[in-house]
Amino acid sequence: MGQKLGKASVCLEKPVYIINSASIVGKKEGEGPLGLLFDMVGEDDMFGCNTWEEAESSLQKDAIYMALGKAGLKPEDISFVFAGDLLGQSIATSFGIATYQIPLLGVYGACSTCGESLTIGAMCVAGGFAERVVCVTSSHFASAEKEFRFPLEYGNQRPLSATWTVTGSGAFVLSDTPVIPKVIADVNGQSEKAQSNARAQIKGMTVGKIVDYGLKDSMNMGACMAPAAASTLEQHFLDFNSQPNDYDKIITGDLGSVGQTVLIDLLREKGYDISDKHMDCGIEIYDANSQDTHAGGSGCGCSAVTLSAYILKQIEEGNWKKVLFMPTGALLSKTSFNEGQSVPGIAHALVLESVY
Amino acid sequence: MGQKLGKASVCLEKPVYIINSASIVGKKEGEGPLGLLFDMVGEDDMFGCNTWEEAESSLQKDAIYMALGKAGLKPEDISFVFAGDLLGQSIATSFGIATYQIPLLGVYGACSTCGESLTIGAMCVAGGFAERVVCVTSSHFASAEKEFRFPLEYGNQRPLSATWTVTGSGAFVLSDTPVIPKVIADVNGQSEKAQSNARAQIKGMTVGKIVDYGLKDSMNMGACMAPAAASTLEQHFLDFNSQPNDYDKIITGDLGSVGQTVLIDLLREKGYDISDKHMDCGIEIYDANSQDTHAGGSGCGCSAVTLSAYILKQIEEGNWKKVLFMPTGALLSKTSFNEGQSVPGIAHALVLESVY
Repeated sequence: MGQKLGKASVCLEKPVYIINSASIVGKKEGEGPLGLLFDMVGEDDMFGCNTWEEAESSLQKDAIYMALGKAGLKPEDISFVFAGDLLGQSIATSFGIATYQIPLLGVYGACSTCGESLTIGAMCVAGGFAERVVCVTSSHFASAEKEFRFPLEYGNQRPLSATWTVTGSGAFVLSDTPVIPKVIADVNGQSEKAQSNARAQIKGMTVGKIVDYGLKDSMNMGACMAPAAASTLEQHFLDFNSQPNDYDKIITGDLGSVGQTVLIDLLREKGYDISDKHMDCGIEIYDANSQDTHAGGSGCGCSAVTLSAYILKQIEEGNWKKVLFMPTGALLSKTSFNEGQSVPGIAHALVLESVY
Repeated sequence: MGQKLGKASVCLEKPVYIINSASIVGKKEGEGPLGLLFDMVGEDDMFGCNTWEEAESSLQKDAIYMALGKAGLKPEDISFVFAGDLLGQSIATSFGIATYQIPLLGVYGACSTCGESLTIGAMCVAGGFAERVVCVTSSHFASAEKEFRFPLEYGNQRPLSATWTVTGSGAFVLSDTPVIPKVIADVNGQSEKAQSNARAQIKGMTVGKIVDYGLKDSMNMGACMAPAAASTLEQHFLDFNSQPNDYDKIITGDLGSVGQTVLIDLLREKGYDISDKHMDCGIEIYDANSQDTHAGGSGCGCSAVTLSAYILKQIEEGNWKKVLFMPTGALLSKTSFNEGQSVPGIAHALVLESVY
């Protein structure tokens, strides 16, 4: 169970647990600062497939496979999957996870989709509708460039405000209990009893609304999304009656270096200083000096793999007790962009806490 | 609250109420057999906008406006919107409902999106996370043809198995109580107290999984989706321990005449005869003899406007006590289609009952 809190938030009376998770990334992400933390790094970005889209599908499939394996679960132990990606009609999801035959609810919130899937997944578990669900999201640099901007073969120039779509997928198993039994089969076929302990707990969520400052530059998505991040963050502080200092980190999805500056400035105008608490997954995932990714990383995969590989690790190790995790999304399509529409933003925030 | 039922279903211990709803359609739908039942019919399919995509956005905006108005509610009375459409990156939603400033969770399930939004919306309300939410979906013939097949200007031929994407949007206000107070202002500015009574109640849901029989014909989506409808329906009967005769109607979203035949045949093989209970929104919405729509109507708007205008009316009037409403979706994009992928299907079912 849970309850509505303030204007746009939900407080979970009984927390929902992230019992385990997994991340898979491409070659470039593997060479970045977080490279050693990911569960799997591809040798190239095709992942043995024939097209970029198939490659992205295989990322979702592999991320779920590893997350279930780490938790000691089988697909039939999962009630529902909440999944999404950036491609038109979410085809990475449709072709990636069919094989598991788990009932699927597809979600779309651009690069905020990781936050959205965890929000709805947590509601589903906390509401008593499922013991365990999986939330998975993905993005792929090449399929996203083709979908939103230019095929890579055009070799177009990218301005310094542009972000680099992360090739990767993160999957999360949510559970209504902090510990689940798991069975490990040893080499002689003897099974050994063990247990999975939750990596973190979800205590509440703030759902974002669409915020449109009228920006039209699809090569500066950080600036397009920052007003939405500021809006959700302000609403979160009001709804939870909290302050930036209540969190060890306030983590956005993929604002990048341009969006970070805008977010900190906008929140200062609203009376909140988050400058010493803020971290952005898009800034963390690449080395800005050596990897030529300009403003940072982006995509639904960016926040998902960073959450699984880095943020949950910090929480598990006790370095951070409580963080606010807020993936950010830029709501555009190539059709809306070509028709001269702006790029509105949206951001959803989750309160993640240590289970200890 | 609710509980998991069987493999893929949820039983709501306390039902969720459809307190009111609204439908808006294009000219062709207005000329069809259900024409007089819709709340609003456009004079042409541009709805005063400059592009088909903007027109579709305005449909969602107007449908929510009317649904809230009929329920005597304001946007600030709604906690969350669950919304989606068929366009790439769900742009009809992003540009349609921003104006309401209600926290948004975007969903995607192709033409099954109406069922999906109601499923997640009902979980949200039943879980205690919101008193009232809005679920809205839309489709538009011209924007969908451009998105999935050919721009209308090409004047391409359509085979007899093709369906006609419905131009329309349906919005539903879900509530945790069967009656809500509403205030009506009369001409002298005096307010009069009244109440909104629920049109129907949601008692349970069965979430579909992806079903792929390998069909690759985007001009025969009925056949692509029918196996998914059969799968969800069989699972529903098993989970709820029910039979076709327990329902006054078993209603699919947009299988059309080809898909209907396939569904009835597939279910007969599984031991269920639904032939005298089955109804398809896509078959009801157009006159097959005079409107040149071939196999019937389709799109997320098809099931949404038929539910609001026709199905809920039959339930309200006591003609049907209990129906199973199951929108069906074909999971393809023009990219997946052009890359030679199949068209998998998905279907989500809801048990709708009279409140009396």
